[in-house]
Amino acid sequence: MTIKVGLVGGTGYTGAELMRLVAGHPELRLDCVTARELSGKVVSDTHPQLRGVVDLVFSTVDNERLAACDVVFTATPHGVAMRLVPILLAANPALKVIDLSADFRLHDASEWERWYGEPHTAPEQLAEAVYGLPEYHREAIAKAQLVANPGCYPTAVILGLAPLLESGLVRPAPLFASAVSGTSGAGRIPRVAQLLSEAGGGVSAYNASGHRHLPEIEQALREQNAVAELSFVPHLAPMGRGIHATLCAQLIADMADEKTLHHTLQERYAHEPFVDVMPLGGHPRSGDLRGGNLCRLAIHRPQGRGVVVVLSAIDNLVKGAAGQALQNMNLMFGLPESQGLGVGGLAP
Amino acid sequence: MTIKVGLVGGTGYTGAELMRLVAGHPELRLDCVTARELSGKVVSDTHPQLRGVVDLVFSTVDNERLAACDVVFTATPHGVAMRLVPILLAANPALKVIDLSADFRLHDASEWERWYGEPHTAPEQLAEAVYGLPEYHREAIAKAQLVANPGCYPTAVILGLAPLLESGLVRPAPLFASAVSGTSGAGRIPRVAQLLSEAGGGVSAYNASGHRHLPEIEQALREQNAVAELSFVPHLAPMGRGIHATLCAQLIADMADEKTLHHTLQERYAHEPFVDVMPLGGHPRSGDLRGGNLCRLAIHRPQGRGVVVVLSAIDNLVKGAAGQALQNMNLMFGLPESQGLGVGGLAP
Amino acid sequence: MTIKVGLVGGTGYTGAELMRLVAGHPELRLDCVTARELSGKVVSDTHPQLRGVVDLVFSTVDNERLAACDVVFTATPHGVAMRLVPILLAANPALKVIDLSADFRLHDASEWERWYGEPHTAPEQLAEAVYGLPEYHREAIAKAQLVANPGCYPTAVILGLAPLLESGLVRPAPLFASAVSGTSGAGRIPRVAQLLSEAGGGVSAYNASGHRHLPEIEQALREQNAVAELSFVPHLAPMGRGIHATLCAQLIADMADEKTLHHTLQERYAHEPFVDVMPLGGHPRSGDLRGGNLCRLAIHRPQGRGVVVVLSAIDNLVKGAAGQALQNMNLMFGLPESQGLGVGGLAP
Amino acid sequence: MTIKVGLVGGTGYTGAELMRLVAGHPELRLDCVTARELSGKVVSDTHPQLRGVVDLVFSTVDNERLAACDVVFTATPHGVAMRLVPILLAANPALKVIDLSADFRLHDASEWERWYGEPHTAPEQLAEAVYGLPEYHREAIAKAQLVANPGCYPTAVILGLAPLLESGLVRPAPLFASAVSGTSGAGRIPRVAQLLSEAGGGVSAYNASGHRHLPEIEQALREQNAVAELSFVPHLAPMGRGIHATLCAQLIADMADEKTLHHTLQERYAHEPFVDVMPLGGHPRSGDLRGGNLCRLAIHRPQGRGVVVVLSAIDNLVKGAAGQALQNMNLMFGLPESQGLGVGGLAP
Repeated sequence: MTIKVGLVGGTGYTGAELMRLVAGHPELRLDCVTARELSGKVVSDTHPQLRGVVDLVFSTVDNERLAACDVVFTATPHGVAMRLVPILLAANPALKVIDLSADFRLHDASEWERWYGEPHTAPEQLAEAVYGLPEYHREAIAKAQLVANPGCYPTAVILGLAPLLESGLVRPAPLFASAVSGTSGAGRIPRVAQLLSEAGGGVSAYNASGHRHLPEIEQALREQNAVAELSFVPHLAPMGRGIHATLCAQLIADMADEKTLHHTLQERYAHEPFVDVMPLGGHPRSGDLRGGNLCRLAIHRPQGRGVVVVLSAIDNLVKGAAGQALQNMNLMFGLPESQGLGVGGLAP
Repeated sequence: MTIKVGLVGGTGYTGAELMRLVAGHPELRLDCVTARELSGKVVSDTHPQLRGVVDLVFSTVDNERLAACDVVFTATPHGVAMRLVPILLAANPALKVIDLSADFRLHDASEWERWYGEPHTAPEQLAEAVYGLPEYHREAIAKAQLVANPGCYPTAVILGLAPLLESGLVRPAPLFASAVSGTSGAGRIPRVAQLLSEAGGGVSAYNASGHRHLPEIEQALREQNAVAELSFVPHLAPMGRGIHATLCAQLIADMADEKTLHHTLQERYAHEPFVDVMPLGGHPRSGDLRGGNLCRLAIHRPQGRGVVVVLSAIDNLVKGAAGQALQNMNLMFGLPESQGLGVGGLAP
Repeated sequence: MTIKVGLVGGTGYTGAELMRLVAGHPELRLDCVTARELSGKVVSDTHPQLRGVVDLVFSTVDNERLAACDVVFTATPHGVAMRLVPILLAANPALKVIDLSADFRLHDASEWERWYGEPHTAPEQLAEAVYGLPEYHREAIAKAQLVANPGCYPTAVILGLAPLLESGLVRPAPLFASAVSGTSGAGRIPRVAQLLSEAGGGVSAYNASGHRHLPEIEQALREQNAVAELSFVPHLAPMGRGIHATLCAQLIADMADEKTLHHTLQERYAHEPFVDVMPLGGHPRSGDLRGGNLCRLAIHRPQGRGVVVVLSAIDNLVKGAAGQALQNMNLMFGLPESQGLGVGGLAP
Repeated sequence: MTIKVGLVGGTGYTGAELMRLVAGHPELRLDCVTARELSGKVVSDTHPQLRGVVDLVFSTVDNERLAACDVVFTATPHGVAMRLVPILLAANPALKVIDLSADFRLHDASEWERWYGEPHTAPEQLAEAVYGLPEYHREAIAKAQLVANPGCYPTAVILGLAPLLESGLVRPAPLFASAVSGTSGAGRIPRVAQLLSEAGGGVSAYNASGHRHLPEIEQALREQNAVAELSFVPHLAPMGRGIHATLCAQLIADMADEKTLHHTLQERYAHEPFVDVMPLGGHPRSGDLRGGNLCRLAIHRPQGRGVVVVLSAIDNLVKGAAGQALQNMNLMFGLPESQGLGVGGLAP
């Protein structure tokens, strides 16, 4: 089997990472990559790491050609996929689509409108889309035609907090998440704040009053406990890749010691190929996961007090974007879930 | 007036930064710098940034010479100052001492023993030492003979959380602090974890189960509210200098809107030369404060919910160590508090 | 004496650094800062490191106000100062101007046109401008009305190579300079190549076929030897500040051993406040010079062969721009040359 | 076919990278990894990026077990392999050995002694060892029993300069190489100079008076022209991985224009799977090659003058160490040369 792949949106880091992974996957063939402003240009001139790996030129969005693919990935700014996907699915009812943007992640169209400032144009597809976090929706993903690939922060935060809520050991509110991302999360867009001269000097929070990934995270946590409520503060650190999230929840009474908490996490992910629970006392480093599709977790209960701390690290472009998209695609096509992904990271 | 300065412990980054500041202070003259293993070596061979600034050689600890100074700074690993300071104070009852280590920060000797694993050898001095956070103990510092200079994390966390506790607007427990530090906080000590090859690749938490700065922070917060309790998770990020702390507390009922919270913070520090409260919506960047003695704060109340978020940034080696020590010294000698300190930071 | 300062172009890193230095200089008062697109905005919103240091708002270019200053610094893209300066000098014949852009650095208007792609609009001023490298033109600078402040690479390269040419010990051609700069050298301009995600990952050369600083360097070297010819390759490294230049020249016959070469360099700069020649065997680190106005040099003659290697490091924004501008201003106004500059750097 | 692999020296970055590549190679099985001081410890505790990839514990050096392997890689400090390899080869005359240290790289034992300060203990094997640069010794490598894997700087410098010497278009002396490396080249050894606090702040040269990779490079260049002589200055930059080398040579008379020079390079490597010659005007970035086995080259003839500049970039741990070792192993065992290596890099 060779699966014909179309990629809409190949300018950014997510698109580039997806091309790298597609090139290394034995069952896939990249048919076309679109990029509005770069159409006609050699892909590897924009992404020199792909010289010798991808020899396509960027094309404009050609609905017919995309609809002739087996699977289309959309790695576009929000607002694009919700307009394109209905057209493609109408043109080819057998097509599978994985959207890496935010367009199909929130089930509630009015909530989407509230955070993105415009009405959702494809409420029907929104209702059908499956949230592509395999650890929680594996079966639905396998059957889905349209998968909403999770955001990077949400992947790190949900994988760390959901098992605690699931277990009923912690209070659903308030939950805290302080997360640090590398600059690639902000995209390959020329902005002063992401210049090395600016972002290279230190750490800072941003969007502390409200980040668009918050409703997505709470929606997922509320699958475990309907009243889950999270305070989420994202930060920028001087690194290209990686997310590290530090998650805090309050234990209900004295229901669980540290070992029980660790056991809960370990059991939950015992058979997951891409979640690694460290031994007690561990501290995951985002730098160890570069290029790999792993989410690495550790759990602490400091001083035996009533607060549990979960540490969660991923590569934002892999498990937080392109890698998870490929994992979803493997599930949707009945391929081995880990195919083309590997597990190790590149360090130093 | 020329104040004669002795520095015990000149090998590390804190000692070096203190030498830089002392050299720029018009009333100070550095008389001697000790360093056990480097005695006889030129100071600026170890700290090339001081070539042309400090032309001393390191000496061994000479109690007589140190006691003949007007002020002695100790920038040594814990356990050293508590043995040396009583000897120096006995030799020169007019001597003033500022200890930049952890030896005199905790009022309770048994608490000190619990965190540092050995009995405190100078309980008398421990009882007399003043905690050198000028924003909360200015008058006592001015009269003190022995000042315990605060730790770097404690400076950032206390300055951010104390006003909220003081105001009575938030619950004293649980409080959350997720703080990120540059590698200089770990000292100029050859360790694998602080190699650029390791720490340069990403972010990681460390000592999530208990960091020695926790009891120091809680001791200070309990001056505002006796039952304050903090969950504190420190992290390492790929940068040399700087601390950024993200602090969360739960509002009591609906006692204060965002503007009131901001006003509370602003009023508390309105006359402080080294605390800068940003306008509402602000996000301090640790990188903007390099070399300056400033603590920069911002406050948010995300989505109008019941959680308040304070962002706090400092240069760990200046306001978090050597700069604050100099600020304390200015107070102890009746000099203008800001002398030799400046306010601006070096960016990029 | 209080000198009234005007700054044209306050958006970039050079302008911001100049404001920091002006604020710390006891004889200067910053009267106005212009920035076309930010006019009316608070300066420290753009440069948060200046909060509490500079409390001006950006203004538009007001020729009358600028001409009423004692000194005007122009820190603008090339092509701006050559149009503005003649107007200001006509309006106020007593005004002194220091141009930090490239507009007055090349003596030859046709050479300027060749590298900058448009005719020079102020050939008269070009002829009168003094090249502001104090170590080589101190007396002329002191008498000058218009000083062309050297580029960052030229400062590092000329200070390292000129003494060797002056001594007659090396061949004037070919000379080699491989220099590495931090990203702040490219300015505070949103460009993909300077994003942390791009520049943070490694080192690369740029403009290897010809960089605009080349003619400026050769012009200066030819003051020492009329046939000097340089191969110059600039690079970008993952750091915000700093330049490190590695300079190679071929010894004429066997005219000088390593000690003689070192002595030549040391003698040349023995009385220079801002050039530091390291002992034999030294290696300057650009990171030790951050915020300081120093050029640090070291010299090697590897394996006693016929090639001499000079290593040269500066802070590109200080000795390579704003600091040198202030040094020139001190000379032009008869102030102590080092006033407001200090010597030390900030490390780590 | 499954090839049984032994690795001597698994503590460092080279050993870890080799384990990553071996784990991804379909024909290899890692039998044992030695590490004197870590024997008995889990490999992935030292190298967390290998959690889930390598599940061995470190062992002590067991000659019998090593000799029972099909191939042994030695990734040890110099002086170790030259003592061990003769023993292993005596025990198993069919064993193949690839030494990643410096022990077998110099053909001349007295030259080795001069640079490493002790007599070579295995002059016989030294004489037989093949220098493992496939682009120049492919056939000899395929037949070799003992391969000396090239150093990281030598790989980058030789691949860039050798074709020019081979072509006869440039003078063999003096040649210039200014090369910049990430900190991983200095190994996973706790040293102050490689701390992020030190190396993170800027760029500096080191060993400018003579680096041990110089004789190795000159030996290789002299295969092309017997009187080749190089000035080589290595530098450290704030990055974990990567080498960028800037190489200069003088053209003989006016023998070649830029296009001819480019064509020469391109032709030389037209069929090489791991050398990528960029189009004219290109500038390789070391950051684009992370994790890949590629050497990327570009060539310039600035201003049409008599100097040619070659830019050369590699990942120091892959093409500069472990990747090239695997490439050599593929050749020695008759496997496809690219197996288990891929070509792309990880960026950002």
